[in-house]
Amino acid sequence: MPEISLAELQLAARNHGLPLEVLREPVTPVGLHYLLVHYDIPAVDPASWRLTVDGEVESRRTFDLEALRALPSHEVVATMECAGNGRVRLSPHVVSQPWLQEAVGTGRWRGVRVRDVLEAAGVASSAVEVLFTGLDRGIEHGEEQLFARSLPLELALDGDVLLAYDLNGAALPPQHGFPLRLLVPGWYGMTNVKWLDRITLLAEPFAGPQQVQSYRLRWTEDEAGEPLSRMLPRALLVPPGIPEFMTRTRAVAPGRHLLEGRAWSGHAPIAAVDVSDDDGATWWPAAVEPAELGAHAWVRFTAEWNAEPGRRVLACRARDESGLVQPDAGSWNLGGYANNGVQRIVVEVTPQAG
Amino acid sequence: MPEISLAELQLAARNHGLPLEVLREPVTPVGLHYLLVHYDIPAVDPASWRLTVDGEVESRRTFDLEALRALPSHEVVATMECAGNGRVRLSPHVVSQPWLQEAVGTGRWRGVRVRDVLEAAGVASSAVEVLFTGLDRGIEHGEEQLFARSLPLELALDGDVLLAYDLNGAALPPQHGFPLRLLVPGWYGMTNVKWLDRITLLAEPFAGPQQVQSYRLRWTEDEAGEPLSRMLPRALLVPPGIPEFMTRTRAVAPGRHLLEGRAWSGHAPIAAVDVSDDDGATWWPAAVEPAELGAHAWVRFTAEWNAEPGRRVLACRARDESGLVQPDAGSWNLGGYANNGVQRIVVEVTPQAG
Repeated sequence: MPEISLAELQLAARNHGLPLEVLREPVTPVGLHYLLVHYDIPAVDPASWRLTVDGEVESRRTFDLEALRALPSHEVVATMECAGNGRVRLSPHVVSQPWLQEAVGTGRWRGVRVRDVLEAAGVASSAVEVLFTGLDRGIEHGEEQLFARSLPLELALDGDVLLAYDLNGAALPPQHGFPLRLLVPGWYGMTNVKWLDRITLLAEPFAGPQQVQSYRLRWTEDEAGEPLSRMLPRALLVPPGIPEFMTRTRAVAPGRHLLEGRAWSGHAPIAAVDVSDDDGATWWPAAVEPAELGAHAWVRFTAEWNAEPGRRVLACRARDESGLVQPDAGSWNLGGYANNGVQRIVVEVTPQAG
Repeated sequence: MPEISLAELQLAARNHGLPLEVLREPVTPVGLHYLLVHYDIPAVDPASWRLTVDGEVESRRTFDLEALRALPSHEVVATMECAGNGRVRLSPHVVSQPWLQEAVGTGRWRGVRVRDVLEAAGVASSAVEVLFTGLDRGIEHGEEQLFARSLPLELALDGDVLLAYDLNGAALPPQHGFPLRLLVPGWYGMTNVKWLDRITLLAEPFAGPQQVQSYRLRWTEDEAGEPLSRMLPRALLVPPGIPEFMTRTRAVAPGRHLLEGRAWSGHAPIAAVDVSDDDGATWWPAAVEPAELGAHAWVRFTAEWNAEPGRRVLACRARDESGLVQPDAGSWNLGGYANNGVQRIVVEVTPQAG
């Protein structure tokens, strides 16, 4: 395991993951959903804020919040994971936000369909991509920029792709993009541009730094690489028992326990989850519950566990219906992305545990 | 600067500080207030939850949430800071939650006075301390425990010491102690026991591990040390300009800027704040605004700054009316507590900055 630098610690102190015990909640309470902010959280006055829709459109449009809320609203419960989740488990070490495995959360997002807003402006036949630009400004790859990412036009027109103004029944909190953010269910977090300022229809693919430098699977700076898009499958267990403060090693009493956790994939429904208590040497199947929160949210799984005294290493792995399976450990890439290697939890099974 | 271990990173990924740009807000939005959870966030069913008041009382009492909400309510806006804030800046390195300087937040807390609840049970003349025990269980100092801390009886009877059930106008979020937590304005965060289960009047001082091992200023394991109590003065600036993603170095255009920040002390009102742009070689006074949020909350300060091109190191330091002043750097102690050394912000003043 590498040691972490001051620069990485500065990011880890600002941003945060989901405390894994909160996996017990089907929808993540506000403040516990993972958070990754590239620059600063912008201060937005909702009274003067406007969304501009321009570029390859029939008529440039602006919307205030009231106008957006007057359009038909749509709700999606979606699990969102950072593309950098698992980065710290890769070797050699990749310097950036140092996630272990906790960069995930599930929100009940409400807003208007991107489709409805684009139709109001009229999409020109020349349009091929939709660019979403936020109000968050900073310097990255040596370049001053507003955070901006594009989607293929066809994806942007999907009925579950939203401009979200509510999270869990209330206005977006500042840190999640107040007053408006993009939500693309199933895609890694960077897709879901926060603090939206502008939607621009493009006649050519976007080549901004968050599209062509960041968020690509590549091994050298010289190659273009493949863009990251949908979340790979992952299962995470609620750590059983109680933690030791500093090491987070768990103490569990011997005997029968019901393990529980959540699993998700942006590619296809979860087909199966296996669990292990010997660090992945042997596995047994968990019971995967129906997708009660809809197609875009994680599913709960449970597994009976007979805990025998001694030091155990719990693990779990998910497989989705497209055939994707979590690897034991993810493979290195330049940006440290998409490491969906299996979770490990060290547990001391001891009669002393409360 | 030390490097950070995996164990410390596990804590940093769960817990989080205040993103410093959010110092612009007088009351910290939910999810941005610093968070330090020793063990796991307990799952509490508010329907079956009860608060027990026992020990040196005339009659043991239990309260459900409805009974507590029926008592007279009281609101306090309070700034709360972790006793470990600044720990990573100490040398030699102290291994624990690795805070830089961001472990702070200000909440609008509403609840019932501890005094009113104790009076309902009747305080026996034998009582000298009040013990607050939470539902959060874990292992620390080699000992399984529920998080528990005591207060001197006289302090517990203070009219601003609350059992809080609301934060910023809504029920406490799970991570801040739902359904009930202690609030002791002016004291470091560990005082404010979350997920309260029991209040016990004691005839002798409490000697639990969070009272006699943790949260004491000491230099060796052998000495008793002094207990931590009230927050030392500290000022923090909103970092001006825009950040570089990885280093958090700021870019600012040359010319006149209005710096702003917040300052607080648990000992006395803030008397003065000074700022520097040459790493503390020279200082000039900031304008400190009146305490509009009450006596227990931070105050805003502003300072004109004429930014000249080049690399600058901004700093600020607070002095309170008791005469306490922030040191340039805090001094080492075994637990890494109470380091209120001055904040530094590296700024590149450049005409290219947006």
